[in-house]
Amino acid sequence: MHQLWRNAYRPVWRRQFGHKSTGKSIDLGGVFVPIPTPYAANGDIDYGALAANFQRWEKIPFAGYCVGGSNGEGPYLKAEEKLEMVSKIRSMIGKDRLLIAGTTCESTKLTCDLSKAAAGAGADGVLVMSPFYFKTRTTEYSLYEHFVSVAESCPAPVIVYNMVPVTGIDLSVEILKKMALHANIVGVKDKDMGKLAALVTETRDQGFQVVAGSASYLLAAMLVGCSGGINGLAAVLGEPLCEMHKLAVAGRWIEALVLQRKLVNIDLLLMQECGPAGLKAAMELLGYRGGACRAPLPPVSAGQVEKIKRAMEKEGFL
Amino acid sequence: MHQLWRNAYRPVWRRQFGHKSTGKSIDLGGVFVPIPTPYAANGDIDYGALAANFQRWEKIPFAGYCVGGSNGEGPYLKAEEKLEMVSKIRSMIGKDRLLIAGTTCESTKLTCDLSKAAAGAGADGVLVMSPFYFKTRTTEYSLYEHFVSVAESCPAPVIVYNMVPVTGIDLSVEILKKMALHANIVGVKDKDMGKLAALVTETRDQGFQVVAGSASYLLAAMLVGCSGGINGLAAVLGEPLCEMHKLAVAGRWIEALVLQRKLVNIDLLLMQECGPAGLKAAMELLGYRGGACRAPLPPVSAGQVEKIKRAMEKEGFL
Amino acid sequence: MHQLWRNAYRPVWRRQFGHKSTGKSIDLGGVFVPIPTPYAANGDIDYGALAANFQRWEKIPFAGYCVGGSNGEGPYLKAEEKLEMVSKIRSMIGKDRLLIAGTTCESTKLTCDLSKAAAGAGADGVLVMSPFYFKTRTTEYSLYEHFVSVAESCPAPVIVYNMVPVTGIDLSVEILKKMALHANIVGVKDKDMGKLAALVTETRDQGFQVVAGSASYLLAAMLVGCSGGINGLAAVLGEPLCEMHKLAVAGRWIEALVLQRKLVNIDLLLMQECGPAGLKAAMELLGYRGGACRAPLPPVSAGQVEKIKRAMEKEGFL
Amino acid sequence: MHQLWRNAYRPVWRRQFGHKSTGKSIDLGGVFVPIPTPYAANGDIDYGALAANFQRWEKIPFAGYCVGGSNGEGPYLKAEEKLEMVSKIRSMIGKDRLLIAGTTCESTKLTCDLSKAAAGAGADGVLVMSPFYFKTRTTEYSLYEHFVSVAESCPAPVIVYNMVPVTGIDLSVEILKKMALHANIVGVKDKDMGKLAALVTETRDQGFQVVAGSASYLLAAMLVGCSGGINGLAAVLGEPLCEMHKLAVAGRWIEALVLQRKLVNIDLLLMQECGPAGLKAAMELLGYRGGACRAPLPPVSAGQVEKIKRAMEKEGFL
Repeated sequence: MHQLWRNAYRPVWRRQFGHKSTGKSIDLGGVFVPIPTPYAANGDIDYGALAANFQRWEKIPFAGYCVGGSNGEGPYLKAEEKLEMVSKIRSMIGKDRLLIAGTTCESTKLTCDLSKAAAGAGADGVLVMSPFYFKTRTTEYSLYEHFVSVAESCPAPVIVYNMVPVTGIDLSVEILKKMALHANIVGVKDKDMGKLAALVTETRDQGFQVVAGSASYLLAAMLVGCSGGINGLAAVLGEPLCEMHKLAVAGRWIEALVLQRKLVNIDLLLMQECGPAGLKAAMELLGYRGGACRAPLPPVSAGQVEKIKRAMEKEGFL
Repeated sequence: MHQLWRNAYRPVWRRQFGHKSTGKSIDLGGVFVPIPTPYAANGDIDYGALAANFQRWEKIPFAGYCVGGSNGEGPYLKAEEKLEMVSKIRSMIGKDRLLIAGTTCESTKLTCDLSKAAAGAGADGVLVMSPFYFKTRTTEYSLYEHFVSVAESCPAPVIVYNMVPVTGIDLSVEILKKMALHANIVGVKDKDMGKLAALVTETRDQGFQVVAGSASYLLAAMLVGCSGGINGLAAVLGEPLCEMHKLAVAGRWIEALVLQRKLVNIDLLLMQECGPAGLKAAMELLGYRGGACRAPLPPVSAGQVEKIKRAMEKEGFL
Repeated sequence: MHQLWRNAYRPVWRRQFGHKSTGKSIDLGGVFVPIPTPYAANGDIDYGALAANFQRWEKIPFAGYCVGGSNGEGPYLKAEEKLEMVSKIRSMIGKDRLLIAGTTCESTKLTCDLSKAAAGAGADGVLVMSPFYFKTRTTEYSLYEHFVSVAESCPAPVIVYNMVPVTGIDLSVEILKKMALHANIVGVKDKDMGKLAALVTETRDQGFQVVAGSASYLLAAMLVGCSGGINGLAAVLGEPLCEMHKLAVAGRWIEALVLQRKLVNIDLLLMQECGPAGLKAAMELLGYRGGACRAPLPPVSAGQVEKIKRAMEKEGFL
Repeated sequence: MHQLWRNAYRPVWRRQFGHKSTGKSIDLGGVFVPIPTPYAANGDIDYGALAANFQRWEKIPFAGYCVGGSNGEGPYLKAEEKLEMVSKIRSMIGKDRLLIAGTTCESTKLTCDLSKAAAGAGADGVLVMSPFYFKTRTTEYSLYEHFVSVAESCPAPVIVYNMVPVTGIDLSVEILKKMALHANIVGVKDKDMGKLAALVTETRDQGFQVVAGSASYLLAAMLVGCSGGINGLAAVLGEPLCEMHKLAVAGRWIEALVLQRKLVNIDLLLMQECGPAGLKAAMELLGYRGGACRAPLPPVSAGQVEKIKRAMEKEGFL
């Protein structure tokens, strides 16, 4: 493998030392599924449906899973629900899979508390967005201190989630570079391609890992040195996504590109045009357990389901 | 009093039937304090400081108080903390004061649960913002259903908070008019002056109450028929604000205007330029217990404190 | 008249010294029509239609007119077209009417050139928005210098247009206060009610004039001391708008309020919901010459026209 | 060369038929310089400085140049100035270089007129952004008609510029696909990496060309099939940028990546952090003629110049 990806594919500590990791001990090199949350008729989390989905996901070479992110309707879940999910999912998945918990809260205190609890419940890492309710008040430095506080108090490593379309805050390369110096902040999930390249260039010496937020540009992100992706599309099309990741790691770009082209439109349709409800509709089409989202997220229209179906058929996934 | 304000000052049901109200039973005609949350050194809520503040606030003719709003760092508080505050504050204030709880959550389920619990803890009403994490996915109708669900399940009446600068969602006059038809949705807190006038014009026959979100335009809002205000400035300058409200109700516009002009710059300085930390700094200057905000809200600078001081002095409040 | 409006209705210089004014010599106390631009079938400006509209407008006690603003599709006109309009309209209107030209350009150089030319063509004042193409690059101070440069080079007085929804830039009270000190910057058109009040409070000693951007809150704006309005609604409902302004000046607030309530919904419908094409459709309904907008502004739908018609009928204007 | 880039590097029509092209006759495969506009002391365009810059640029294998774009302070120039620049620059550059003119105006009429005039003055193509002043009024379809009108009336081919950060409008893959069917709309300049990939995938059969808006992700964009870039950085670091493009075309990704990593931070610094004034400062450092921008664009600070210098030195460009 080419020298440039040394850091992205450096010794895989978690397999050597088990999943309870400390320090920069988790390896984000691979594809992660931000798992959608299925509900029972009464609105509670449907663990049966979740177990059924994991039976299939566990056969795909994912690096791991993420609980309580945007695709998992994280903002719609109680803290207690998130922790229960971490605990129950930990027992549904292999020891070699990483389990990341989305633990974003608005205040540092609540984020620290939830992150610590998530680690206690079995999370190998926590994924934390910038608090944004008071985005006109906070400064980049007060946000830096926020992430450092979480990193200090949480036994599991922290992945920074720079989710600009939701937060309206774009953490700069400079502040992320500063965060990368902290032993327990192990990576960042970002979106802008120029910035992904800059982040890799600036932080690879610290072993910092840069992760692509969308399958639609995962291949391009890997070309500039990203480790992998936490991509909603993985919930439905995990096999080709993992295959593309593998080909990219091997430097087989043109073969990988054929897959990227098969995936890009479906990804934009599901993740940008339709959102969580569309992803769940796609899961149903492919035999996974999806179901409805919690209100006030409206269901996808019949027209959108039809469009998803046609897009899947066109690329031979259905 | 002029006929036009009949609805805003219609029979005051809560005084007749006690503070546990149902249906359109609370009267928002007056000034409400969105109370800032003081913290002890360990970061917990400082109820001693809160009690000290209420000793002074209770001498001012406020219509009531609001717990867990933006000025109270609501998004920084655990659900349990909000409920405990409602319960403890209820015992610190007079029976004739309304206690409103900010119960905004992202999912309908969580908002219903928290609203119901707040009513159980002693809240006379709940103030609910539009969920906005998935603002590109929700529709105006799915938000309508959200508010109706809360109104159906919560024994206390619901006030809709159309907080556009934070949510990025502007509920239309049409959808708010539709909400006004629901017996347990009793009012809306909004900001745009043309819209406030339109809302009053369109909904006064339903006894719907329109509330101004800022002291900087409270007088103008009352001219077009708003009932009152939930205004951060009330935490520090409650007396002149209540006096201005009283003069406006009496149609003494020019006398009221003298007060409005004394208040407007301080309000913009505290609420727009400085935010919650500035409001707390102003409280300290005036002998209230303010203190620091929870992280990641940074403290106000020494320069800002000086600016606040000078603005207060200029208008004779210090 | 009450002392507080002294500045808004101070000696009317223009009537004394003629319409070619210098220094703070124009009086914005009144209602201005931002005139929609009618086009002939070949896309050129239809001066016959314009003359027909002025025959009616000139019977209404407007303070003046504004050419080439947003409602006049100013951004869709060539500089030469704007100047020709100023020149031709000057000959269609009375000497006692003020003619304001919208001369916003992106660079200081072009704005100065166009403003000077507009004054030469007969404009009594120029209305200038903040340049916003490079809004992330300019500073409040570089914008201050921009407005001062225009004021220095243009013989006609400058009115600053703080059009936040279009520019994304909100000029602060502080910088506007600084501009108010310049002899040839005579006023500001703004929107936020708290800010309007603060601006009046802070700048009335300089004789600075604050103007309301919308008829939907003109009455409230006058209560806090604004001089008048430049309001699209004036193109169709000039009489009641001028009557409301007159009542407000006389301190007859409650009578004025009856008119404000008749106008507010129509204003929001035309100006917020429908835009320039809707305003033109309303003109047609009321016997003015409206017609189509230039592309790419799409025409209003039949449903919107019907809605406008019903709103006009409901309030007895049709 | 690999089959996947067939469309991007299809027969180079312009070399066969001369630079006056019609239909899909221009080849965007390469690096284009969006030329900064130098000014003389009196504020007029400094053609001497421009000629000096072209003496160096003409030695670099650029595909061509772009006049009057954002980096050229296009919105700050009169229409007459843009046309004069096109005409004069045409005589300064080789016949085999493409000259693209930025002809964005707000109305369809003005854009058609300017585009036609630019073609007459010697432009080989025009680059047109979505009109955005009335962005809440226009529809995607009315914008489609706008671009088609320009394409119908302009003898030179049209490149659509989907400049979301400035316009706030994101043209969808679907509407761009529809535009790609028009013989005289030959390409699109866009930014989002997933969308670039989707656009290439969806439109390559029409020979539509997708162009990267920034050098910071040019390599990634080429991996997913983009033809080239119109990149501000080319004004200062044209050689390595063209070299990177050439390596990418040859499929030598890892060698190209070494260059991409050298360029990414400088690009973000100049184009995102500093803007046009920063680019001009960098030009001065490298011996090009830069100078000041027109007001109200403020100059870069001494600190920023120092930062640019250090960034250049770090990568060995200075």
